[in-house]
Amino acid sequence: MKLLRYGTPGSEKPGMLDADGKIRSLENVIDDLAGDALSDASLQKIASLDPTSLPEVDASTRIGPCVAGVGKFMCIGLNYSDHAAESGMEVPKEPVLFMKATSAISGPNDDVVIPRGSEKSDWEVELGVVIGKHAKYVSESEALDYVAGYCVVNDLSERAFQIERSGQWVKGKSCDTFAPLGPWLVTRDEVADPQDLGLWLELNGEKVQNGSTKTMVFGVAHLISYLSQFMSLHPGDVISTGTPPGVGLGMDPPRYLVPGETMRLGIDGLGVQQQITVADV
Amino acid sequence: MKLLRYGTPGSEKPGMLDADGKIRSLENVIDDLAGDALSDASLQKIASLDPTSLPEVDASTRIGPCVAGVGKFMCIGLNYSDHAAESGMEVPKEPVLFMKATSAISGPNDDVVIPRGSEKSDWEVELGVVIGKHAKYVSESEALDYVAGYCVVNDLSERAFQIERSGQWVKGKSCDTFAPLGPWLVTRDEVADPQDLGLWLELNGEKVQNGSTKTMVFGVAHLISYLSQFMSLHPGDVISTGTPPGVGLGMDPPRYLVPGETMRLGIDGLGVQQQITVADV
Repeated sequence: MKLLRYGTPGSEKPGMLDADGKIRSLENVIDDLAGDALSDASLQKIASLDPTSLPEVDASTRIGPCVAGVGKFMCIGLNYSDHAAESGMEVPKEPVLFMKATSAISGPNDDVVIPRGSEKSDWEVELGVVIGKHAKYVSESEALDYVAGYCVVNDLSERAFQIERSGQWVKGKSCDTFAPLGPWLVTRDEVADPQDLGLWLELNGEKVQNGSTKTMVFGVAHLISYLSQFMSLHPGDVISTGTPPGVGLGMDPPRYLVPGETMRLGIDGLGVQQQITVADV
Repeated sequence: MKLLRYGTPGSEKPGMLDADGKIRSLENVIDDLAGDALSDASLQKIASLDPTSLPEVDASTRIGPCVAGVGKFMCIGLNYSDHAAESGMEVPKEPVLFMKATSAISGPNDDVVIPRGSEKSDWEVELGVVIGKHAKYVSESEALDYVAGYCVVNDLSERAFQIERSGQWVKGKSCDTFAPLGPWLVTRDEVADPQDLGLWLELNGEKVQNGSTKTMVFGVAHLISYLSQFMSLHPGDVISTGTPPGVGLGMDPPRYLVPGETMRLGIDGLGVQQQITVADV
């Protein structure tokens, strides 16, 4: 299933795509795409519905972030060997974890706001993993059972804030609108192999990132198992699994976002996002 | 006012202390100590009540974390010059920001669970700042207007997970129960000067930390203003402002927590926490 949230920011309602790609409302079925609604039982209940029996939503409605109530937004750094190389960093021995503030989450097609003082805002297409049930000390072999589904993430990054402003990356990762999420939460049954997905990003129509989750250093199952050794993962938590090569930081010379640019990005089977950059006035 | 949350984990209700130190229920006044209930208008409404008119709560009731719905738990590293020295780190030029997972939040007197594989779990008494209204690009002079109140935080830290397990500190800061919060959210009107508060921590009755917020490198107003340049701060967000000297990492030889130890910690006017460490079985 392709689940989504639609409506005005902060007041989104849950929905799903039908076989014709029309948005159908789930507002009478679940409160929101959050918490317990992401459990296997809840997803099975939704799957048992006839989508054409659900109210149709106007196709021009804004699409919001595909998950609500995200407790923590975990990101994995340097998780594609060729991206580590372009960043001038070594491939890490263990997954590098950092957090993105959940206040950065926005809809997949919302404007991206370049923060005041930013000169090095950059893009990163990533595979997002949405947790469906509580995970703690889980093994790699059972890890994918804890996934509700997958989505596209643009892990926007202000490189000066991230790297040049005194230690830890979170300042450059957490600016408002720096985490477009969606358009859809694609349930895990529709993703045959999360380690065989093409992912790409176009800047103003030019393809700048074009990779595959095949070249991840640490795969999805390993990441879930690994993170669950340190802390509980809860329904609605998001793991963004790192970006392939082609970010602005890695270009020669580096190339960063300015207002008025268009990012378009997608992952096989998970849909496409498109954002326009705007100044923070 | 001293506001608090009481009851079983995950089902806490809001309350306040009366003049005699008795817990009075606010469950018929606000839904929870979260979001809009932390606004000036809401706090003024609560302040206008006669506490003795509110239902009394049994004194033996568990106290929960003093804020609910924490969107982000921001921590400032190396923010006391003498703690930076004991950690073998330089005082940073700008505040060092890292995140603690909100899933780590626990009640002020709940057991602290030493995670499996931990050999270097450590304590850190810190002044916590709870945001009361949306803050973005605020000046230092107006920053304290955005504070709902203050509380005690124990910023527990697994030093091997934090420092020795591949980049970024969040793994060592986010273990379950590693963020006891409370006992009270003390509204800002009761804290004459957040930069003149004694703070201390006793391990098994021995005072190991004993400092003052006077020696913070970056004060509360500066931190709020600074962080708001990078991202929106929302009601219920917590900023933990760093720890004074006396952590286990800084001892010679270093000294870390094992199951069965007792931490007792407090800050002038903000109350006292007490935790017992237990193994994760």
